[in-house]
Amino acid sequence: MSNAPFLPLLLTIIEAVGTLAFALSGLLEAARKRLDAVGVCLVAGLAAFGGGTLRDVLLDRRPFVWVAHSEWLWVLLALCIAAMAFLRARHFAPTEKAMQWPDALGLGLFSATGTQLALAQDLPGIVAVLMGVITATFGGVLRDVVCNEIPTAFSDHRPYAICAFIGGWVLVLAQHAGLAASLALVLGAACATGLRVAALLTGFTLPRWSSGDAA
Amino acid sequence: MSNAPFLPLLLTIIEAVGTLAFALSGLLEAARKRLDAVGVCLVAGLAAFGGGTLRDVLLDRRPFVWVAHSEWLWVLLALCIAAMAFLRARHFAPTEKAMQWPDALGLGLFSATGTQLALAQDLPGIVAVLMGVITATFGGVLRDVVCNEIPTAFSDHRPYAICAFIGGWVLVLAQHAGLAASLALVLGAACATGLRVAALLTGFTLPRWSSGDAA
Amino acid sequence: MSNAPFLPLLLTIIEAVGTLAFALSGLLEAARKRLDAVGVCLVAGLAAFGGGTLRDVLLDRRPFVWVAHSEWLWVLLALCIAAMAFLRARHFAPTEKAMQWPDALGLGLFSATGTQLALAQDLPGIVAVLMGVITATFGGVLRDVVCNEIPTAFSDHRPYAICAFIGGWVLVLAQHAGLAASLALVLGAACATGLRVAALLTGFTLPRWSSGDAA
Repeated sequence: MSNAPFLPLLLTIIEAVGTLAFALSGLLEAARKRLDAVGVCLVAGLAAFGGGTLRDVLLDRRPFVWVAHSEWLWVLLALCIAAMAFLRARHFAPTEKAMQWPDALGLGLFSATGTQLALAQDLPGIVAVLMGVITATFGGVLRDVVCNEIPTAFSDHRPYAICAFIGGWVLVLAQHAGLAASLALVLGAACATGLRVAALLTGFTLPRWSSGDAA
Repeated sequence: MSNAPFLPLLLTIIEAVGTLAFALSGLLEAARKRLDAVGVCLVAGLAAFGGGTLRDVLLDRRPFVWVAHSEWLWVLLALCIAAMAFLRARHFAPTEKAMQWPDALGLGLFSATGTQLALAQDLPGIVAVLMGVITATFGGVLRDVVCNEIPTAFSDHRPYAICAFIGGWVLVLAQHAGLAASLALVLGAACATGLRVAALLTGFTLPRWSSGDAA
Repeated sequence: MSNAPFLPLLLTIIEAVGTLAFALSGLLEAARKRLDAVGVCLVAGLAAFGGGTLRDVLLDRRPFVWVAHSEWLWVLLALCIAAMAFLRARHFAPTEKAMQWPDALGLGLFSATGTQLALAQDLPGIVAVLMGVITATFGGVLRDVVCNEIPTAFSDHRPYAICAFIGGWVLVLAQHAGLAASLALVLGAACATGLRVAALLTGFTLPRWSSGDAA
């Protein structure tokens, strides 16, 4: 790509933005559940790094992101302390709404990198795509499980994991077709993020399982 | 054994039948909780492969079953789509009742293979038996935790994990007594399945902890 | 240290006392939730060994404590059977109150050993401290998650993980300052236990996030 020199910087910025959005989702859920300072920090950390950590445990990869870049743990701690000092209940809803867009960026990038890390281990396409989905969604799943809620990603009928799933397949097919890894990554991530943004803008919901009604 | 040539085929069939029964248990719980399509697929997958995956993480074994045989992920996806298309609420109770028997087959086989994989790493008998119990029951535990329920395996007072526990010890003792591994596997699995079938037929329940009442 | 010959024995005694206190916390929560015999044993086991096992999975260490010392599984089984035979509902509250002190000993020792194991892998200080916190608290977190409760450690506003956090930093700094590992371990553990005991005696609670109220 002609803009190759800018790509690593761009990806680093998106990674930071996405991680912060994930952490904030944990922070807000912890506040809503009235957890204490420890709960706020640990749930924010689970939301931010849980998905990638679970993927790395499954793929037997080390070190984790938060071990290799442990400065992230300080950033997270500072974020939580700042939020507890300055964020008030009236800010929660607007913060959550504003976070939808960086969250969509994180969804795209993390699903694409998760898929690519699995492909690098020569895993089958469907396993690689699943690893991308896990990377992007299981931070939120762990956040919700620990907060004693059914995971939003499993129950809100809005496309989230499905965007990661489709973006993952675009990446797998692009890479099989011989595209450069960096280009395939951008394509897959853009596709997942684009689908999520489209779903947010249109309010599209997944069809209901008609049989579930009387269950 | 005289029927040795048939044994691998028989075990493969039981494995498939048991995996499908475990997946269906997840699928039905997801339907009851009105999860969306993503939740249905992921909970079915957790129920089917969660126990074996947790065991492999604990034993540090790779690849997981669903990585080595990734066609299973396609089967699971097809099963979930077919269920959402054709299964109606009135089918849930009879499906669940019919699934008790293949589920008992899965309980026996998965606890026996889990125990045997741990013995192959020279782990102590009690650890091997525990690995068998985890293989057979923690798919269901993860399914229930994610669906925000106390795990059935911990609370329904019906023998399930205990059948796996006893079957595991039968396998360990048979193997220590010098029996061939394949024979020990069949013995342990048959014992666990048989106990479970007997418990289902008789409606036997575990004695209550009398002190729990006033707690 | 002049009393070095006694140290290993002392640490072994504290480890046993702490493990039993953690197991009893799981046992009592299982009784309160009216779990069956299987649930009682598995929740007691999760509470006792869940934190250290999760730490070892994250650090990629084997064998786990309960694999290397599998006699612990027999002790746990015997403890659960004895509790179900002799413990009555009227004993629960006094048992829980009495367990606070050995639990504080376990908190100190397990957070210190967790931190030190991570330092031995040359991990950064903050990661090592986090591993200590995970060792000391995630047994309880898993116990609560499986029992369908928001983890006490995240929500009761009483210092627990924070004591492990501070004790961990004392250990890290002591070791960086050149103290012998055994002395640093004792210092960190004593600091965490001391803070917890002080918190219990004074009834100190963490400040509330004022914004949480209207959320």
